[in-house]
Amino acid sequence: MDIAPFRREVVSAALAVREKAPLVHNITNYVVMQVSANVLLAAGASPLMAHAPEELDDLLAVASALVLNIGTPDQAWLDSMFLAGECAARRGVPVVLDPVGAGASRLRTDAARNLLRAARPAVLRGNGSEILALAAAEGLSSLEAATRGVDSTKDSAGAVAAARGLARRSGCVVSISGETDYITDGDIVLAVRGGSPLMSRVTGMGCSASALTAAHVAVAGTPLAGAAAAMAVMAEAGEAAARLAEGPGSFLSRFLDALYLLDARHLEQRVFPA
Amino acid sequence: MDIAPFRREVVSAALAVREKAPLVHNITNYVVMQVSANVLLAAGASPLMAHAPEELDDLLAVASALVLNIGTPDQAWLDSMFLAGECAARRGVPVVLDPVGAGASRLRTDAARNLLRAARPAVLRGNGSEILALAAAEGLSSLEAATRGVDSTKDSAGAVAAARGLARRSGCVVSISGETDYITDGDIVLAVRGGSPLMSRVTGMGCSASALTAAHVAVAGTPLAGAAAAMAVMAEAGEAAARLAEGPGSFLSRFLDALYLLDARHLEQRVFPA
Amino acid sequence: MDIAPFRREVVSAALAVREKAPLVHNITNYVVMQVSANVLLAAGASPLMAHAPEELDDLLAVASALVLNIGTPDQAWLDSMFLAGECAARRGVPVVLDPVGAGASRLRTDAARNLLRAARPAVLRGNGSEILALAAAEGLSSLEAATRGVDSTKDSAGAVAAARGLARRSGCVVSISGETDYITDGDIVLAVRGGSPLMSRVTGMGCSASALTAAHVAVAGTPLAGAAAAMAVMAEAGEAAARLAEGPGSFLSRFLDALYLLDARHLEQRVFPA
Repeated sequence: MDIAPFRREVVSAALAVREKAPLVHNITNYVVMQVSANVLLAAGASPLMAHAPEELDDLLAVASALVLNIGTPDQAWLDSMFLAGECAARRGVPVVLDPVGAGASRLRTDAARNLLRAARPAVLRGNGSEILALAAAEGLSSLEAATRGVDSTKDSAGAVAAARGLARRSGCVVSISGETDYITDGDIVLAVRGGSPLMSRVTGMGCSASALTAAHVAVAGTPLAGAAAAMAVMAEAGEAAARLAEGPGSFLSRFLDALYLLDARHLEQRVFPA
Repeated sequence: MDIAPFRREVVSAALAVREKAPLVHNITNYVVMQVSANVLLAAGASPLMAHAPEELDDLLAVASALVLNIGTPDQAWLDSMFLAGECAARRGVPVVLDPVGAGASRLRTDAARNLLRAARPAVLRGNGSEILALAAAEGLSSLEAATRGVDSTKDSAGAVAAARGLARRSGCVVSISGETDYITDGDIVLAVRGGSPLMSRVTGMGCSASALTAAHVAVAGTPLAGAAAAMAVMAEAGEAAARLAEGPGSFLSRFLDALYLLDARHLEQRVFPA
Repeated sequence: MDIAPFRREVVSAALAVREKAPLVHNITNYVVMQVSANVLLAAGASPLMAHAPEELDDLLAVASALVLNIGTPDQAWLDSMFLAGECAARRGVPVVLDPVGAGASRLRTDAARNLLRAARPAVLRGNGSEILALAAAEGLSSLEAATRGVDSTKDSAGAVAAARGLARRSGCVVSISGETDYITDGDIVLAVRGGSPLMSRVTGMGCSASALTAAHVAVAGTPLAGAAAAMAVMAEAGEAAARLAEGPGSFLSRFLDALYLLDARHLEQRVFPA
């Protein structure tokens, strides 16, 4: 595989986020709303959080992408996500689905599966455990796929085969975060390297990756390039922040600074053939 | 206009917040609850977040001001806001209305208009787009008044005429945030200068301005002075924080420090005749 | 009282949190979800926030402790808390109850009393005002026990007798935060010293103490030792953070760093006989 074109697309997508400031509509969990908004703003995008059925279509008429994140699900919020998915589909707005905690409860696994079918996301972004749990629920994997809470207990590499299967079945890109990130459209598999172990000691890093994925998919040539660009931005900013951080508190502050100060040219060296 | 008395009132209000620690009841959006509470605490006030209809009257019996912020609206929360507005009116508690995203959806524009009528706020605080959208919805302006999401796409100066119209019609002070802030009771127009472009790269700065407006109105001689004091505090702390910040993450941390360390005497030089 | 065994247990509990990474399920208020999750992660535990009735039992099957925090109550969330309390009791998962704002509204006082009976918490953790308000509501105290909003207006020492009464009546440990913290099982009273006045200028410090209490109770020999360990961790990290902070913004960032870098051996010197 010639990696050079993908590397150029990743740089272009990151630059385009700053230039076009895509409006990203988020229906996400309570824990990460603030950090997701701050990550989007620091990266040059424009966040919008809204869940009322009455206004979803008005807002998706002007949004450039939609994030559906099931981190603190309940029936009312899931109903909003399904409705938003419909509006987005009708308007051609790309959707990113973050199946937070899939495998940890029946509610989450079912919600993730049903949203994967109904909202037809451009990108499914989760950790290894969540992707394995979804693949198992879809009968695509015989792997033991339990998750422990919402944390990844499987490494990302172990979920690549399941991700390819899910990508083919669902017609979406699957992005797996981990020490190395893997992004696949079912055929091509890209790897993104970087980041820091401190990222697992701050809440909302996965959810922020999903928000950034939406911002980059909104402006990228393909969902694959957009998803890879977002993970490259996370990896680059995470590594820069960790160099200056003394712990997870200063890391979070430095991470937002690093997103803001990011030099998109550095992203090239984050992307590899898997 | 002699600006000196307004400048003195602004300094007095900021000092009074520290001395009296007014309890500010917030019914606000999910994204900014934490930062609003932290901003109020750093400035010397005491935050309270509560939305259950069953307890609104109990809490407004001891609160010094009420913030109604429609940033993540739905029917249940809007119902709570209307009820809280009634309790506040009956008890003489001043209300600050933040019409987040007015103009971006019918739900928001209608909610803002109806709250403006029903809750009779002492201060309406929004960005230029939101104020223009509300004025247009009230038939006070022929200006094209659409907003793009919840960000201001119009500058604050362009909304001053609309703000004066709204202030006269509604009998409230209108406070417009922007590169320069404008505060008007329909007659007098004060300008507040300062702040930093980094403030638009952190979520919740507008909502924090509304929370601080409530804290200052609670202790100021007039809503006009209270609203101007809050914007002067934002401008002063924002500028101090930006001098030390490397990006939006360190800005937010420094901003809370600057609010805490603020010398109220410096606020005088922030306030000008418009 | 020989304090040495308690001191050793406190150190052991803090080490065990890092080693075992207990999964702490939180049904908590909107304001503090992010900071609670970050505090748990920084201390080595694993946070989970979830409130949907449909998934509570699935999640409590794998959780090591449950936090019930009534900081932004409404009927739906209180219903979830009662149901989660039942699931936790059936599964032997220890519960920590944080009666935020008890005394400030009838809704909160009643919710706290009813949860104290129904969820049978291992630890009740609040500030002096909240503990006094609950004791008065239970007829255990003739003290004037009003709270002002959700802030403590009484010092913690003045609530020790009420806490002992509540602990005996309810069969739980009561942990009172304040300049000095007091932890009692109704018989023994431990004092924990440290922390910083800056902790009262940042939102969510009390709620974070409750989350840490759950994490430590999950791994400690007794709820008394677990509750004392959590307050010792707060005191130690708070004092370390305050030494480096310039205000509440940098304090919060430093506090998370200090939790992450904490040397558990230092906790011994935080615990005293009361």
